[in-house]
Amino acid sequence: MSRIAQPVRTRVEHDLLGERDVPLDAHYGIHTLRALENFTITGTPIGRYPELVAALACVKQSAAVANRRLGLLDERRADAVVAACEQIRGGALHDQFVVDVIQGGAGTSTNMNANEVIANRGLELLGHRPGDYMFLHPLEHVNLSQSTNDVYPTALKVALQFAIRRLRVAMDGLAEAFSAKAAEFTDHLKMGRTQLQDAVPMTLGQEFGAFAVMVREDAERLEEAALLVTEINLGGTAIGTGINAHPDYARLVCEELRAVTGLPLATATDLVEATQDVGSFVQLSGVLKRTAVKLSKTCNDLRLLSSGPRVGLGEINLPAVQAGSSIMPGKVNPVIPEVVNQVAFEVIGNDVTITLAAEGGQLQLNAFEPIIAHSLFASLSHLTAACEALSTRCVVGITANVAHMRAGVERSIGLVTALSPHIGYEAATRLAADALDSDRSVTELVLERGLLSTEELEGIMRLRRP
Amino acid sequence: MSRIAQPVRTRVEHDLLGERDVPLDAHYGIHTLRALENFTITGTPIGRYPELVAALACVKQSAAVANRRLGLLDERRADAVVAACEQIRGGALHDQFVVDVIQGGAGTSTNMNANEVIANRGLELLGHRPGDYMFLHPLEHVNLSQSTNDVYPTALKVALQFAIRRLRVAMDGLAEAFSAKAAEFTDHLKMGRTQLQDAVPMTLGQEFGAFAVMVREDAERLEEAALLVTEINLGGTAIGTGINAHPDYARLVCEELRAVTGLPLATATDLVEATQDVGSFVQLSGVLKRTAVKLSKTCNDLRLLSSGPRVGLGEINLPAVQAGSSIMPGKVNPVIPEVVNQVAFEVIGNDVTITLAAEGGQLQLNAFEPIIAHSLFASLSHLTAACEALSTRCVVGITANVAHMRAGVERSIGLVTALSPHIGYEAATRLAADALDSDRSVTELVLERGLLSTEELEGIMRLRRP
Amino acid sequence: MSRIAQPVRTRVEHDLLGERDVPLDAHYGIHTLRALENFTITGTPIGRYPELVAALACVKQSAAVANRRLGLLDERRADAVVAACEQIRGGALHDQFVVDVIQGGAGTSTNMNANEVIANRGLELLGHRPGDYMFLHPLEHVNLSQSTNDVYPTALKVALQFAIRRLRVAMDGLAEAFSAKAAEFTDHLKMGRTQLQDAVPMTLGQEFGAFAVMVREDAERLEEAALLVTEINLGGTAIGTGINAHPDYARLVCEELRAVTGLPLATATDLVEATQDVGSFVQLSGVLKRTAVKLSKTCNDLRLLSSGPRVGLGEINLPAVQAGSSIMPGKVNPVIPEVVNQVAFEVIGNDVTITLAAEGGQLQLNAFEPIIAHSLFASLSHLTAACEALSTRCVVGITANVAHMRAGVERSIGLVTALSPHIGYEAATRLAADALDSDRSVTELVLERGLLSTEELEGIMRLRRP
Amino acid sequence: MSRIAQPVRTRVEHDLLGERDVPLDAHYGIHTLRALENFTITGTPIGRYPELVAALACVKQSAAVANRRLGLLDERRADAVVAACEQIRGGALHDQFVVDVIQGGAGTSTNMNANEVIANRGLELLGHRPGDYMFLHPLEHVNLSQSTNDVYPTALKVALQFAIRRLRVAMDGLAEAFSAKAAEFTDHLKMGRTQLQDAVPMTLGQEFGAFAVMVREDAERLEEAALLVTEINLGGTAIGTGINAHPDYARLVCEELRAVTGLPLATATDLVEATQDVGSFVQLSGVLKRTAVKLSKTCNDLRLLSSGPRVGLGEINLPAVQAGSSIMPGKVNPVIPEVVNQVAFEVIGNDVTITLAAEGGQLQLNAFEPIIAHSLFASLSHLTAACEALSTRCVVGITANVAHMRAGVERSIGLVTALSPHIGYEAATRLAADALDSDRSVTELVLERGLLSTEELEGIMRLRRP
Repeated sequence: MSRIAQPVRTRVEHDLLGERDVPLDAHYGIHTLRALENFTITGTPIGRYPELVAALACVKQSAAVANRRLGLLDERRADAVVAACEQIRGGALHDQFVVDVIQGGAGTSTNMNANEVIANRGLELLGHRPGDYMFLHPLEHVNLSQSTNDVYPTALKVALQFAIRRLRVAMDGLAEAFSAKAAEFTDHLKMGRTQLQDAVPMTLGQEFGAFAVMVREDAERLEEAALLVTEINLGGTAIGTGINAHPDYARLVCEELRAVTGLPLATATDLVEATQDVGSFVQLSGVLKRTAVKLSKTCNDLRLLSSGPRVGLGEINLPAVQAGSSIMPGKVNPVIPEVVNQVAFEVIGNDVTITLAAEGGQLQLNAFEPIIAHSLFASLSHLTAACEALSTRCVVGITANVAHMRAGVERSIGLVTALSPHIGYEAATRLAADALDSDRSVTELVLERGLLSTEELEGIMRLRRP
Repeated sequence: MSRIAQPVRTRVEHDLLGERDVPLDAHYGIHTLRALENFTITGTPIGRYPELVAALACVKQSAAVANRRLGLLDERRADAVVAACEQIRGGALHDQFVVDVIQGGAGTSTNMNANEVIANRGLELLGHRPGDYMFLHPLEHVNLSQSTNDVYPTALKVALQFAIRRLRVAMDGLAEAFSAKAAEFTDHLKMGRTQLQDAVPMTLGQEFGAFAVMVREDAERLEEAALLVTEINLGGTAIGTGINAHPDYARLVCEELRAVTGLPLATATDLVEATQDVGSFVQLSGVLKRTAVKLSKTCNDLRLLSSGPRVGLGEINLPAVQAGSSIMPGKVNPVIPEVVNQVAFEVIGNDVTITLAAEGGQLQLNAFEPIIAHSLFASLSHLTAACEALSTRCVVGITANVAHMRAGVERSIGLVTALSPHIGYEAATRLAADALDSDRSVTELVLERGLLSTEELEGIMRLRRP
Repeated sequence: MSRIAQPVRTRVEHDLLGERDVPLDAHYGIHTLRALENFTITGTPIGRYPELVAALACVKQSAAVANRRLGLLDERRADAVVAACEQIRGGALHDQFVVDVIQGGAGTSTNMNANEVIANRGLELLGHRPGDYMFLHPLEHVNLSQSTNDVYPTALKVALQFAIRRLRVAMDGLAEAFSAKAAEFTDHLKMGRTQLQDAVPMTLGQEFGAFAVMVREDAERLEEAALLVTEINLGGTAIGTGINAHPDYARLVCEELRAVTGLPLATATDLVEATQDVGSFVQLSGVLKRTAVKLSKTCNDLRLLSSGPRVGLGEINLPAVQAGSSIMPGKVNPVIPEVVNQVAFEVIGNDVTITLAAEGGQLQLNAFEPIIAHSLFASLSHLTAACEALSTRCVVGITANVAHMRAGVERSIGLVTALSPHIGYEAATRLAADALDSDRSVTELVLERGLLSTEELEGIMRLRRP
Repeated sequence: MSRIAQPVRTRVEHDLLGERDVPLDAHYGIHTLRALENFTITGTPIGRYPELVAALACVKQSAAVANRRLGLLDERRADAVVAACEQIRGGALHDQFVVDVIQGGAGTSTNMNANEVIANRGLELLGHRPGDYMFLHPLEHVNLSQSTNDVYPTALKVALQFAIRRLRVAMDGLAEAFSAKAAEFTDHLKMGRTQLQDAVPMTLGQEFGAFAVMVREDAERLEEAALLVTEINLGGTAIGTGINAHPDYARLVCEELRAVTGLPLATATDLVEATQDVGSFVQLSGVLKRTAVKLSKTCNDLRLLSSGPRVGLGEINLPAVQAGSSIMPGKVNPVIPEVVNQVAFEVIGNDVTITLAAEGGQLQLNAFEPIIAHSLFASLSHLTAACEALSTRCVVGITANVAHMRAGVERSIGLVTALSPHIGYEAATRLAADALDSDRSVTELVLERGLLSTEELEGIMRLRRP
């Protein structure tokens, strides 16, 4: 018996360019279809950013309510839009957000995709079939009083708040993991190093304490950057002049969006400026880059301190999470710090991408917001995953080689620094050189030469306890 | 009736760290399982790079043959490995390559994933069950004479060749599209512009001809960079000293890999250097960045020349591929050049990521090759898609506004440049200023002032035809 | 008569490595001399950053006072150090700060250079000759209680405050210049553009107002970043444990430095962290990059709006500040925006340099602070010059082509957007297409087709006044 | 008695914008004067790039000869131009090249500066006073048949060839220094490391040999990139159409320039493309970035291997070139590798600057070539200095701690890798774990457990000699 390919059942939709068949059960429509054909860059649909999809639904829902309050949208349609948006925010229909994450058109295709999915789900809720747009139109109703140019950046900002919150939680977890280790290691004496050369003593607790402080400071910077991303341009419509929007609309829709999202959003004072400006995205990316730089430095340190096991610094041990080598049995590698390093490199590269996209904005709009969005979402979500992996799969399991570190302190030349105020910089310099040349310890030489008495020496050492 | 969740059926595998349950039907094993848990950064599995999966199979197949020729692997096992690899190269089991594209461990997890999938498919072909590694072991047989540190970069290079070839085809197509337009526009006179100011006349054909030349030159540079990526370190094993590999292995396996892939691969002279060096990846990325820069500049020009329709330069029209705005009816935007710009920005950012990863290599290895691989594959595949979109969805449909361009030439001040050798730079300067101030044409003023006769003027104009 | 080369008269100094001849009249000493030989990278001495030299003197002066208050430095020596520092802050001896701006050693050579110049000037003030270090020693007295690792970053932060203040003034001036133009252009109607395509009407005043707002927002961000650069680690000495410093020293020296500089400096809570952390530099650079991006975008717009004079957008005229071309008489180019663009590109590149240097820090110190300092000073001073040039040599002289802009509005298709709420998105789309195809005006067609009455049309147009 | 300021004596010159006083003894003129006022960004004059000044003179000289051969310039004037250029190439008048290295105007001010200096020196040679341009005019004679748009990039390419040659020499020296050390260290056994974990044995000679190979490969890439910078657009004049140049001029002037410079220059086939294209600069910068990345990695390794002296890897010693610390007596830091790292970071940042400048080119010209030039000259000259410092002040003096390295090999676990083929991967894994846990040596355990006989073990070890 022959197998016959079942034809996909379709409906007809039309736009500026003509008619097209859309799959009958698709919630998206002709605008989305054309975008699908035009942009086949990454193969990754915007549905992969659940925060963005939810944020778009928040914006559309708020706009519908504001339009209803202004008498521009009848109750029935408004309710349908609101209900559809609530469903999407609850996780429904994300698979219908199909346009590519890298797309031309300043986010128009993303906005159109949202308009169409919401309209068609709304139509279903109203008892109509998808595509019966006379009852609920993607542009004339769902997009009423809106333009991609205010909807898209606003939704992006709402989505970023959601994503920042998740990163914040992961960073807090990481800071706590480092703090706990700092407390655990508070008594472990070791040599500090500057420029990779033995410097002066410190404790391993101080070293891990510094890691914790760094993460906490970055988290504060992130919080400040997030605040800048609460200024929205919704109501500015096409270029910020508010064309086709009611004079009260901007205020009302912001009120609604604050209520729906629980975020402290505020309408920009100069909507023309706010429409073309992507400065807060650049700033946010700069802060993510800062976080990446510090995380990478921290992971470099962890890898350095755990180098060995026999011919490295060997001061700490990272927990083994997988076999390290396909050829070297028993080798365990610092794979978690390594993956964090790589995420950091990606975030730094993304910052350059965002910089170029921001610089490329022209006149009343930045057409390159989609790549800014894509890069920010990647940076945020990968950093979140990286912080979680680092704290839960690495930091919490770190152990210290206490005796090895202490032996290092005793063997070190760095001791002369503490003696320098007592015997002078130049005498201390000679002492260091002699200890190194003769392969002997500094204390031995000090006593032998009668530079200090045993009591004096012990007194200095006690005081110098870091 | 109650619904009971069906337990996933599993088999037990073990490694350095202990035992774990692996899904019974999985072709991957415990090493892959651990990597899956350790690296949950992007959610994108390496299987999304079909070129890399195929390349890994090419390398494993070549190693098996070389090992068999050296008497290190028995025929039965070697044949099973080869057969499994052939199937994977044919497209099978790509869904079993599940480790995250961003991963720690210098590619070990990718190599382990390949070893396990090949071993388990080989076991099936030999009539055994997955996991019965005594008959065919992922490390002792599939990975025999190999290390991640030579397998991974070699497979990466093979995969890049495949990806470069596809980009090359797309670039050639784009160059041809521009050339065809250059021929079509060869007679259309227009003003050239420098620093966005009217300069001197040229033809639109010359403008599009330059676009074609740029793409062609970039394609040549790509070809040169590809050549650098043919030098492999297979046989160097862990750090390039060839530990655990037969003295003849490096030569034999390279022969096999050349035969299997059809690529002009060669073994590096200094394998220690070749194992730690990622210079050819940096160079390739630099050339991709160059291509991105030029593509972006070209798209900027296309957007500029097509600006309007009424208050822009309006010299050319890009084909409409979708409605441009959710609020401005009838607006058509240059969405294809815009998406190409964004890909270019991404490629430029990727280059910075690769730079940092390359700089971060330490001693005998660069642990950050996975992010280099990820970034290069993204750059290559997105550039390929961008070039295809630009040529097929934009350039081929571009039309010219011939009359508008010609009117611009006639109205322009730039004409004085041609007169300068005849009346002097300073007189020409005054003429330009007067024409501009009086809003009159240059030729009018020249004749009025008797600077040149009508015949002289026409002679000059004729000669100056670009 | 023969001319005999006068031998340079010298004094002998010694260090760890041996003895060297130092020019007799040099205020620097042997450590500086070695650094001069070791670092011959740029040929630019640190004396080219007067803010840094002054800041070093501020730090050394504060340390001397703190040491005197703690009874660690006798009054006579302390006074000599203070007097020498005051002279340097007043502009003296900057030519003695000779080490290269790019140097190894985490700033040690810069600190040594300062120590030696201050010691030798102090010696002169005490009636001794340069080099008679038993009376006032560069390390034992001038550098007392200090380490390069707390002095250098602290001085850098003080210097940055000075430099940021100058940039701030320049940015304020630029914002005012744009605001003044916004007021001047408040009534000039023009077409707004999105994605370089004609969008909807706005005023030129709105366009320039947006430029002003952008600069002002960047200035606020700069102010916030500057605040982060007030946290210092002075007193932490070598690695933040405060080795060789009196327990009260950190508090006292910060008090003094606040008094001397007038800056709201504060000692970091965790000095170990503060010593290794360069996060505030990364953040500052990120904000400078943001400023650069926005300035570049603004200059791109100015160049675009002034393109022409005959075959461009031609909406505004930039003042002519020099002849534009060696071959095209009468050509005037937008050279001031162009130079600002280039400064922006440099600042963006510097940000990457700083990122790499920050990421390269290891363990208790970042050895690469000198390149961070160099890049930040370049970014700050070039941005300052760029903002000044842009406001005084360009923005203040900009004029508008009012009639040309108005004609553009009347000719445009963008009008249909305002009609869309009245006749529907789809009807408006058809109207736009027909107007474009027939080369007629939108109003003409609306009236001809009886879509709206003349009164209705005028009413809409009046309301839509941006 | 009152002091009266001596007025600077001046001459009057005029241009498009009016008249200005020029210092009487200045060889530059009014165009340069205006540029001086317009561009006060860095304070660094183009005279600081002697290669560029010389290259400009080469181009002007060649143009004068070509114009004379074509009968466009009389012999007397041509000879004066040639003589002036010869003097400048010999080092004269570089202090008259005063315009800022960062400037707007696509290099026009640099070209104008050259035209004026050459004209005025030519006037002196002809017995006239500077400014008497009727006898020799900067634009009508010195710039005859030329435009900034072909002169500037051509001069830049010639200058780059000179600068590349110097870098090449420095790189060769560095490669030789590494090779010499590789030979010296050829017998010194040590542990190789991957991912900072002990891997398998190698020799220090192999490690240094790899450094040498890396530099040599980079030098080859540089040579290839230099070749791309030999294609010039001289003769294309304003936009590549050759307006105002004789049909034979491009060929003749290239011939002359080849003769004057000794460089294998060639005229581009498509001059319109060549005039706007900066691809070869982007490529060159990409290769310099590659070199920077490798140098930085090498310096990271040197710093790592020399870490200590007591609590680091301590395998090699870098020569002491200065005291390392102002607080830690006897500390010697790796300042030379550190300065090289910083140059590398700068070069990588410059590459981003160049990328942005290249991307910003519009239509027939890239207005941002001055910042490209500035960045390339900085990268080239700083890399040259860095390579020289690294080879002469560091590499040549490196010594090895032979016994320490050998003890590391004996103590290491990495030995199990060599045993793996004999006892199996899994048994070897257990062996490694047990050795590590019990703090015992691998060989000890092998023999104790009877896994291999003493003879077998020795046989394997002998064979595995790297």
